[in-house]
Amino acid sequence: MTEQILTTFDDSPKEACGVFGIFARDEAVARITFFGLFALQHRGQESAGIAVSDGYRAKLYKEMGLVAQVFNEANLAPLSGHIAIGHTRYSTADSARQVSAGPFLLESALGPIALSHNGNLVNTNELRQLLFERGVGLASSCDSEIMIQMLAGAQGNDWVDRIREMMISALGAYSLTIMTRDTLYAVRDPWGFRPLSIGQFNGGWVVASESCALETVGAYNVQEVPPGTIVIINDDGMRMVQGREPEQSHLCVFEYIYFARPDSIIDNQLLHEVRQELGRQLAREYPVEADLVIGIPDSATAAAIGYAQESGIPYNEGLMKNRYIGRTFIQPDDRLRKAGVALKFNPLPEVLVGKRVIVVDDSIVRGTTSKPTVQLLRRAGAAEVHLRISSPPIRHPCFMGVDMATYDELIAHRLSVEEIEREVDADSLGFLSLEGMIEALQRPLGRFCTACFTGDYPFEQKAGGFLPREQQRCETVERQQVR
Amino acid sequence: MTEQILTTFDDSPKEACGVFGIFARDEAVARITFFGLFALQHRGQESAGIAVSDGYRAKLYKEMGLVAQVFNEANLAPLSGHIAIGHTRYSTADSARQVSAGPFLLESALGPIALSHNGNLVNTNELRQLLFERGVGLASSCDSEIMIQMLAGAQGNDWVDRIREMMISALGAYSLTIMTRDTLYAVRDPWGFRPLSIGQFNGGWVVASESCALETVGAYNVQEVPPGTIVIINDDGMRMVQGREPEQSHLCVFEYIYFARPDSIIDNQLLHEVRQELGRQLAREYPVEADLVIGIPDSATAAAIGYAQESGIPYNEGLMKNRYIGRTFIQPDDRLRKAGVALKFNPLPEVLVGKRVIVVDDSIVRGTTSKPTVQLLRRAGAAEVHLRISSPPIRHPCFMGVDMATYDELIAHRLSVEEIEREVDADSLGFLSLEGMIEALQRPLGRFCTACFTGDYPFEQKAGGFLPREQQRCETVERQQVR
Amino acid sequence: MTEQILTTFDDSPKEACGVFGIFARDEAVARITFFGLFALQHRGQESAGIAVSDGYRAKLYKEMGLVAQVFNEANLAPLSGHIAIGHTRYSTADSARQVSAGPFLLESALGPIALSHNGNLVNTNELRQLLFERGVGLASSCDSEIMIQMLAGAQGNDWVDRIREMMISALGAYSLTIMTRDTLYAVRDPWGFRPLSIGQFNGGWVVASESCALETVGAYNVQEVPPGTIVIINDDGMRMVQGREPEQSHLCVFEYIYFARPDSIIDNQLLHEVRQELGRQLAREYPVEADLVIGIPDSATAAAIGYAQESGIPYNEGLMKNRYIGRTFIQPDDRLRKAGVALKFNPLPEVLVGKRVIVVDDSIVRGTTSKPTVQLLRRAGAAEVHLRISSPPIRHPCFMGVDMATYDELIAHRLSVEEIEREVDADSLGFLSLEGMIEALQRPLGRFCTACFTGDYPFEQKAGGFLPREQQRCETVERQQVR
Amino acid sequence: MTEQILTTFDDSPKEACGVFGIFARDEAVARITFFGLFALQHRGQESAGIAVSDGYRAKLYKEMGLVAQVFNEANLAPLSGHIAIGHTRYSTADSARQVSAGPFLLESALGPIALSHNGNLVNTNELRQLLFERGVGLASSCDSEIMIQMLAGAQGNDWVDRIREMMISALGAYSLTIMTRDTLYAVRDPWGFRPLSIGQFNGGWVVASESCALETVGAYNVQEVPPGTIVIINDDGMRMVQGREPEQSHLCVFEYIYFARPDSIIDNQLLHEVRQELGRQLAREYPVEADLVIGIPDSATAAAIGYAQESGIPYNEGLMKNRYIGRTFIQPDDRLRKAGVALKFNPLPEVLVGKRVIVVDDSIVRGTTSKPTVQLLRRAGAAEVHLRISSPPIRHPCFMGVDMATYDELIAHRLSVEEIEREVDADSLGFLSLEGMIEALQRPLGRFCTACFTGDYPFEQKAGGFLPREQQRCETVERQQVR
Repeated sequence: MTEQILTTFDDSPKEACGVFGIFARDEAVARITFFGLFALQHRGQESAGIAVSDGYRAKLYKEMGLVAQVFNEANLAPLSGHIAIGHTRYSTADSARQVSAGPFLLESALGPIALSHNGNLVNTNELRQLLFERGVGLASSCDSEIMIQMLAGAQGNDWVDRIREMMISALGAYSLTIMTRDTLYAVRDPWGFRPLSIGQFNGGWVVASESCALETVGAYNVQEVPPGTIVIINDDGMRMVQGREPEQSHLCVFEYIYFARPDSIIDNQLLHEVRQELGRQLAREYPVEADLVIGIPDSATAAAIGYAQESGIPYNEGLMKNRYIGRTFIQPDDRLRKAGVALKFNPLPEVLVGKRVIVVDDSIVRGTTSKPTVQLLRRAGAAEVHLRISSPPIRHPCFMGVDMATYDELIAHRLSVEEIEREVDADSLGFLSLEGMIEALQRPLGRFCTACFTGDYPFEQKAGGFLPREQQRCETVERQQVR
Repeated sequence: MTEQILTTFDDSPKEACGVFGIFARDEAVARITFFGLFALQHRGQESAGIAVSDGYRAKLYKEMGLVAQVFNEANLAPLSGHIAIGHTRYSTADSARQVSAGPFLLESALGPIALSHNGNLVNTNELRQLLFERGVGLASSCDSEIMIQMLAGAQGNDWVDRIREMMISALGAYSLTIMTRDTLYAVRDPWGFRPLSIGQFNGGWVVASESCALETVGAYNVQEVPPGTIVIINDDGMRMVQGREPEQSHLCVFEYIYFARPDSIIDNQLLHEVRQELGRQLAREYPVEADLVIGIPDSATAAAIGYAQESGIPYNEGLMKNRYIGRTFIQPDDRLRKAGVALKFNPLPEVLVGKRVIVVDDSIVRGTTSKPTVQLLRRAGAAEVHLRISSPPIRHPCFMGVDMATYDELIAHRLSVEEIEREVDADSLGFLSLEGMIEALQRPLGRFCTACFTGDYPFEQKAGGFLPREQQRCETVERQQVR
Repeated sequence: MTEQILTTFDDSPKEACGVFGIFARDEAVARITFFGLFALQHRGQESAGIAVSDGYRAKLYKEMGLVAQVFNEANLAPLSGHIAIGHTRYSTADSARQVSAGPFLLESALGPIALSHNGNLVNTNELRQLLFERGVGLASSCDSEIMIQMLAGAQGNDWVDRIREMMISALGAYSLTIMTRDTLYAVRDPWGFRPLSIGQFNGGWVVASESCALETVGAYNVQEVPPGTIVIINDDGMRMVQGREPEQSHLCVFEYIYFARPDSIIDNQLLHEVRQELGRQLAREYPVEADLVIGIPDSATAAAIGYAQESGIPYNEGLMKNRYIGRTFIQPDDRLRKAGVALKFNPLPEVLVGKRVIVVDDSIVRGTTSKPTVQLLRRAGAAEVHLRISSPPIRHPCFMGVDMATYDELIAHRLSVEEIEREVDADSLGFLSLEGMIEALQRPLGRFCTACFTGDYPFEQKAGGFLPREQQRCETVERQQVR
Repeated sequence: MTEQILTTFDDSPKEACGVFGIFARDEAVARITFFGLFALQHRGQESAGIAVSDGYRAKLYKEMGLVAQVFNEANLAPLSGHIAIGHTRYSTADSARQVSAGPFLLESALGPIALSHNGNLVNTNELRQLLFERGVGLASSCDSEIMIQMLAGAQGNDWVDRIREMMISALGAYSLTIMTRDTLYAVRDPWGFRPLSIGQFNGGWVVASESCALETVGAYNVQEVPPGTIVIINDDGMRMVQGREPEQSHLCVFEYIYFARPDSIIDNQLLHEVRQELGRQLAREYPVEADLVIGIPDSATAAAIGYAQESGIPYNEGLMKNRYIGRTFIQPDDRLRKAGVALKFNPLPEVLVGKRVIVVDDSIVRGTTSKPTVQLLRRAGAAEVHLRISSPPIRHPCFMGVDMATYDELIAHRLSVEEIEREVDADSLGFLSLEGMIEALQRPLGRFCTACFTGDYPFEQKAGGFLPREQQRCETVERQQVR
């Protein structure tokens, strides 16, 4: 049975995976990894896994499901050791398979190696060919399996050399935690597409996709792993070495806008504060006379508060989210759809009635949810509905791993802002400008990958070019989910 | 294995169960019930079930788990008919058993009968004795089983008579949906302890614990079921008859403060609006000079916004909640606890640093989370932390079904407000006064059950008296959870 | 999904349930019950359950599945006490539901009561009506629930009186183990339809459907529970009292022929020996010149050896059984069926080729497997195939709980022996005569229920009469299996 | 939780895996494979899997459990195509892991490749080193993964060349079915350690470990795959080519004695007939005056019948086997053990009492069950117990994949036959002689691997030598079972 997800009101970009790692003597490293993954659950709900090493032998447990569903005391207990890495995987319809769950663990000439990966490579097909030519068969279509087999077969005599070799060939986004018999590595690609942070922990070290996970487990002295860097953590302490010359920074700007948790810090900025500032800037660019500012919960709340602060128009909650919304196999039938089933949100009529409402959202991808949301607000009594988006129009698909859409699906590729305004039936519509966004971010444009707004991709398009994530499933091997 | 719940940061009162019912020809009643239960998920996460009747035969499917976990197309498909009732059950440690899941379905002299129950009876032991004397053996300690066996064995020749007979004996809180072969009943106890609403649906009718569920499935002309009323819905349409003379109204005030969803309407008031008003009143009663108002997410957000509106002090988010927090078998070890594991909340330091912070919560029960929350805010840089509670001190346990605590556990029973202030290490602490609460509710005091604040219980204490919910497990029969 | 069972080669009568009980201080009674149920697994593979009492509180664990699948150390551990009863339930297509699994456990006016049942009542509908009139609603269509509710509501002041009261009303087959707070009871109906044995165990006592289970757990001084008897076992030791005047004995003769394990003893006879004697008698009645005697494995092996002994014709194995045959959801498609898929048996050609083969089976019900078996033997090279059945033709359905068939389905009701012989394509066919069977059993005819051979039912047919088991599902309540 | 197996009465050698393959246009190849695996269930109960190809894309489904548990219509349905291979895996305590389940499926330079393996390589460590040097990381300790990665990375331009290259390096036992995009291969090692047969099927072809599986699905013209041969089956029909020069035949003699089903044919001999002849030869070598011959069910039944035929002493069943014996997590406690818990067998006292009994078993490995069996028979009344073993004493461990025991564990390595006789408390003990066994097999000694009897291993012992299967788990990577 194919699981389907309630997408009626879900038009978010989708991203992939959270990674975690810890090296700490005399600590329950698997348990700490569990809580770290718990804090990274928003980055992936498909599967969860933990690999540990006790300095001699590596062990792995992974399964489909949420972190809290996958692990219990019984399967956590055998995961003893002083090094651990963990992984949560984002769910896409076609990857909901046991075989793609992380971390990956292999035995190799240099002993055991395990790898957790967040990101997406753009030269997957070439790398697969190189592995095939070397005589490696691949059990999945995962980038993670490609990278771990690249490491297992690299020329270098030590793991650092091997990681460097892999970094030369691998083009694209990768924030990795790697565990060998006695060492924990953290690796971030030279472009810095995805975040990766490191902190101290009671004499040891922890690494995580986002600082919020480090905060959760009580780490301190948190810093970011610089692009192109290999972090080496073992009984000699922590060292950072250059893995490959850093390229121009291309941090995915959607980490700021949507992906990362508001309580995470990237580049010394608390994302909640950044999102408020995006809202303030939006208020400056697209002011409108109104009575009320609301946000689409929960991702646009901070921007909405910022908009309210800047505009002086009162902020309030106007849409209530079903906290338990999640995956279900059950789809509303046509009757229910037409009857206006509001599965994800309910409006708060007393708040909205007779009001001129500014509703702030973080982005529009396909545009499928904007119109129903506007209608929901109007039916609840809103006199006017002014839609404000705290990011520019998305006009280009992402080739770096974000599961957004193809050109044809992107509403801002097909339609002008005015056409979208009519399409979604808003009284007015304003997208934050690229310049406004950059100003709010207080960092130069060149620091980010903004290809989805500008079409300036970080890698040159070759003949044949890169494919959006959705079209990269070229393999001839297909696996059923193992329960 | 005993499941344990991450309670470090959970000090909420606990309540029990959501009920749903639908009578609609030519509609997918089980599917609609599924979405109704989905909207009531906040009232119970332990088990979910749906019973249907096609006018001849009744069918039931129920299982432990969240609504979306329990149902799939395969088990929903056989549930065909034009009448359905559904149930979500709240999880208490000692009731996490298959045998307690609802709805209950029995065959009886008058044909099949199914029942979903929200509430708690106070004369359970007497009723059990009456059933024992009549010669009924009971498989569980559920009030629901008691009530359905009372109905199955009542004297009346029709179901309405039988429901009336049951209403005479049953003392306490019950909002019920009942399904027989050809009729849907909705029943609300004479005191109106728990909410129950009804709406029209495309030629048929729907009933639900809260109006938000009716809204979700697209019902209209929503009204409340008056206390003491039996609603009769069948092919002749909808009728309301008196089941028992209504008593003085005793709607549980905690439905307003905490239980019901903010987008539900009770007594013509949107709860979000009510909670904002509680916040405003709190600001009037306990003003303080400060820079920032934050709320404990998500339940105190509305009150915090209200406090901010009234005080003129800016509102912002200051604590970020892990959206995926939920049940886990894994407990933090002592080391993690001491390291300050913030599993449920992370603070937003940039928002808080150097600020005099007013933090609004909806209630304090045991007081176990208030101190760590204050500490979390201080560590994040808050200059001052002023705790404001949008309800009065809870000084008495609930005998009406809310899983609060015993006298000894209630911090406000043991300590004065000043002592609590010191205990939780707040710069100041203010509880909303009973009078202030009533004023904010814009209804007379006599409309509510406020026994947990006042000790004025709705039923006279007999010799032996009533027991708090936690002490009502007197039976000699214990069942293991079936997986 | 409806589970289907590979029935292509299964034409056995089906029977229901094994019961077990133990009273023993300082023993792991649940564990011993587990092993007792393990030995009774052949009497029911649908579900398994164990209830225990420690003298104060009763506990229950039951689930769908084989005994070894249902229980593990984790769910066995909490089942502490000194009294236990257990149940394995036979699987019929329409009863494969959680709600029918045994034992049943209820709380009642006299404290907890649990019951395991093997048998079938014939006046179920009347008893259900009586319970309905008394005001008891029933959650299942199980005889077990009827009986336990009859006990819970009986008039007597002690359990023995109540059991006696139940025995007066309940018409049909019941071998029971009953557990109350402090006592284990074993009860056998006045007709003695189903076996029930008791033995001593290390200072305590054990009861089981068959002596093989007593043997398995190491009991000694094993004896049968006489029909109409209530065995009372508690700290005062073991007593037998009359529950109801014993009627003429009606032990189901199919326990001898097929149901019970060959290593069980009934009425002082080892069933393996009895079945050999049936084979010897068959050889005397239907001799034929042949080269080889084989049996249908495994149930007819003893009879085949007996036939060989008496006839002097060599015995050998001729059909090999797939030991792992069992339930599967997968059905062979038509192509596979036509290709002669032999899923249950493979013939041994070298043993059969050119031989005149006597093949012994224990019974023919619908006759669906006899023809394919004869064909299988012929294709494997058998020169002649002589079919011998170690029981008389089954011409009447069973109303006492054996899931045989309706009149129309019974091949011996529709056809004469000669017609069956042609139908199944045997060179000759012989059924053991009723007289021959009785002679082999060395007990008078009056000792057995032989209604399926003779039509002499133990209970008078009333107007409306009794219904075969398959038609007794009259209730208007249907339950889905809970996982 | 570690699963434990009821081994009290299990002293059999253990072997690994059944393989199946089919190439047939317009047939439900996955369904047919299901039934083929069903017939091979005795060769492995740990996991089951099926891979299919439709000429373009390969798909796989595999899971832990019995064939009938793993597959249902829902997971079988997507497995469409005209080529399939299947695998059942034998369960050893330390390999009960998802990661070891077969078949394996990889994508490679030449497209998809899947492999099912029965056997054991002896130069695993060398082959792993070769793969590591080539840069392949390995996810398991399975020979199957080694072989499929060897194939994926072999030099040859077509699969036949690659299989040949693999056959040059791989030392040991392997009967394989291999599926590529458009071709089914069957491969048998040059020594012919494990059986492998092929038959025609309705215009297509089927391959299986044993002929009984071919028989089950209705194949015809069954023949064995000669050692060293590669069978190539595709739309051009079936071809056999030499993969590597066949070595001296070393068919594992235990396939004759115990492993293969009695209804399978190897080297034109029905194994049931062979085992009877082993029994006859045993009777000639070790006659004794006695009243009764019984066999240990079920594996020694044929040999016992043969002994009875030759000796003229009557055959009968004397021990009854619990048909449902299987894996359980529950262990008998000491009390139960001492009480003589007979979980696997119950004796038939009436058959045995006062008799001089010859009991035939197929082999003695550790000797752990022989003494309890002799005691069981004596307690049941046997006057004398003469133990006869239809194979020679096992004095050497197997390095070819049979999970027997180490030198220290082998009772016949530690003790002489006389000492064993005393140890097991038999009145007499006779092992079939090597010469007698060979005579009964009617094939020259050189045809078989009899190393466990003789110590003449098929491969020279190198420095460091080969390790028994139990000691080959040297890898540093360990995986938890994924449910």
